[in-house]
Amino acid sequence: MTPPLPLGSTIGILGGGQLGRMLSLAAARLGFKTHIYCPDRSSPAFEVTPHRTVAAYDDRASLAAFAAVVDVITYEFENVPAGTAETLAPLRPLRPGANALAISQDRLAEKSFLGALGIPVAPHRPIHAVDDLAPALAALGNAGILKTTRLGYDGKGQRRIASLAQAIAAFHELQPHPLVLEAVIPFVREISVVIARGLDDATAAFDPSENVHRDGILATSTVPANISPDTAAQAQAHAAAIARALDYVGVLGVEFFVLADGSLVVNEIAPRVHNSGHWTEAVCVTDQFEQHIRAIAGWPLGDPARLADVVMENLIGSEIAAIPARLGPGVRPHAYGKAESRPGRKMGHLNLIAVKKPRK
Amino acid sequence: MTPPLPLGSTIGILGGGQLGRMLSLAAARLGFKTHIYCPDRSSPAFEVTPHRTVAAYDDRASLAAFAAVVDVITYEFENVPAGTAETLAPLRPLRPGANALAISQDRLAEKSFLGALGIPVAPHRPIHAVDDLAPALAALGNAGILKTTRLGYDGKGQRRIASLAQAIAAFHELQPHPLVLEAVIPFVREISVVIARGLDDATAAFDPSENVHRDGILATSTVPANISPDTAAQAQAHAAAIARALDYVGVLGVEFFVLADGSLVVNEIAPRVHNSGHWTEAVCVTDQFEQHIRAIAGWPLGDPARLADVVMENLIGSEIAAIPARLGPGVRPHAYGKAESRPGRKMGHLNLIAVKKPRK
Repeated sequence: MTPPLPLGSTIGILGGGQLGRMLSLAAARLGFKTHIYCPDRSSPAFEVTPHRTVAAYDDRASLAAFAAVVDVITYEFENVPAGTAETLAPLRPLRPGANALAISQDRLAEKSFLGALGIPVAPHRPIHAVDDLAPALAALGNAGILKTTRLGYDGKGQRRIASLAQAIAAFHELQPHPLVLEAVIPFVREISVVIARGLDDATAAFDPSENVHRDGILATSTVPANISPDTAAQAQAHAAAIARALDYVGVLGVEFFVLADGSLVVNEIAPRVHNSGHWTEAVCVTDQFEQHIRAIAGWPLGDPARLADVVMENLIGSEIAAIPARLGPGVRPHAYGKAESRPGRKMGHLNLIAVKKPRK
Repeated sequence: MTPPLPLGSTIGILGGGQLGRMLSLAAARLGFKTHIYCPDRSSPAFEVTPHRTVAAYDDRASLAAFAAVVDVITYEFENVPAGTAETLAPLRPLRPGANALAISQDRLAEKSFLGALGIPVAPHRPIHAVDDLAPALAALGNAGILKTTRLGYDGKGQRRIASLAQAIAAFHELQPHPLVLEAVIPFVREISVVIARGLDDATAAFDPSENVHRDGILATSTVPANISPDTAAQAQAHAAAIARALDYVGVLGVEFFVLADGSLVVNEIAPRVHNSGHWTEAVCVTDQFEQHIRAIAGWPLGDPARLADVVMENLIGSEIAAIPARLGPGVRPHAYGKAESRPGRKMGHLNLIAVKKPRK
């Protein structure tokens, strides 16, 4: 058994956005120091620790120096370059591991991995060349969503397709190739499960959240989701199977489509803390950020129990002005400290908590 | 009306201990930057922000430079020297104000202030000279607690007295003079109320906690306290009256003795976030640290509603080894990141949450 990381150790975090910032805040509550590595000098995570490296992800000397001053390394985003992971992994424990990165960075690899586990995914066809479009469209019912296999997020890198002409136009717009054409899933709602797996193989899943997206960006997560206990249990079981198959250590987000009969199709997996888990910070014994830190530190996982019903509402762009204007009863705000508000940029969130006072 | 402090503003915090650290973490969640001022180079709060000043509290040039780079100033400890407050107050808003510091730094001034409000305090006599001891002891029933009027905390600066000889010996041991002899209160339990008052005169009190001390140091806070609703309401009303009378802005802790008939005697007040309020971070919509930051930022106060019953257990000295060893279901840990564990030193705490799962 690897002993638990001692109090006072330093956790290295690749990425300085809001997820890195929230991981750093959670690590501090557990008595850890954090060191943020990010090429962007104005990263919001730089405001919550004195230890930083401003350098490119392919700067091997800076990566080695970073590894030398931290005890374990994690990341806030799935698009950590493979070369970065290869440089760091021999120097310090990299958790979650390079395997999770490789699979989640490539939609085709991810779908193959899930299919091999017997977990349903959307029907799909790889699109390497423009000539692949016509047979793929025919096979998938003459409609679909054309997506980059790599580097997509928040609805970027994808187009809804209803004709071959649209598909050809989108093929030329979307970069980098190859692409994948996915069937349109007739879902009735979207849910996600945020799950943690520890070094000891224990797993702990939060309750599924029901997610609403707007313009491809998560707008709200509602807990409990309006799904049956069976569907909830199935979603958590799929998430646990994925975490085990990846030999995963840390917090993992799994997004699902729910069909009319309650069955599930995995949309995508994210090897990191997840926007649809931000509700956990307001109403759970252990939130997703603390849970991730505990997992990568080799500590026992925390209790994911939920104390109240909640709706998490993202504040996108100028919606950040809801803080402090909308802070009424039951509202717990979180602002990410980003200097500049841009359209489509995640600036903060509100947790709207259904307060039922306990007996006095 | 003073407008609310904008997101991205910098909050200056005097004191770099665990309370300053937890205030800084809460400020970050609200989108503020923090700058910690502390003479101790190894302050734990220095680990959660890149902005620090290491300088003495009477270093006027450093204080002025600090004021110049922050937007509002607060503090984590009531023994901020009067000269420090006098230097800073003309430069930036100092919240809570110098008035609260002056009164809470002096047990005699505090008791006079409370008496003038009609709030019960322990019978007491000022002890300026050794000759004051005999008549004071006689007046208070030949027993009491001899205390320094200034700079006492965690049971330091006080002696239990049962004879004139003990009193004389204690008089010579305790520094600085003058002292105060307080009657021993036959309390059945100790409680405290943590309350916030905003710039808009709104107040918001957390539920009273029941506190157990060991060796003069807080050991546990249990919520709800085993008191009647009337006693709870009276304690919150006293706390609100104190906050208003001080024209207070921020979070204030008020410690009470509860007598057998449910009546209350104020033990002491602390013009800051309070150890007996650490339970709020685990189970309240708004915790005391966020509440303090909201108050001093001129934001609307948060909802102090409580989602579950809880026991907060301090980890003193080597008890910090309870993390991660004792992290079972319902347990939420907090470690302060102190490099050195010493007997009597507050190293962290656990919140033991009574989880009742909400309906699915």
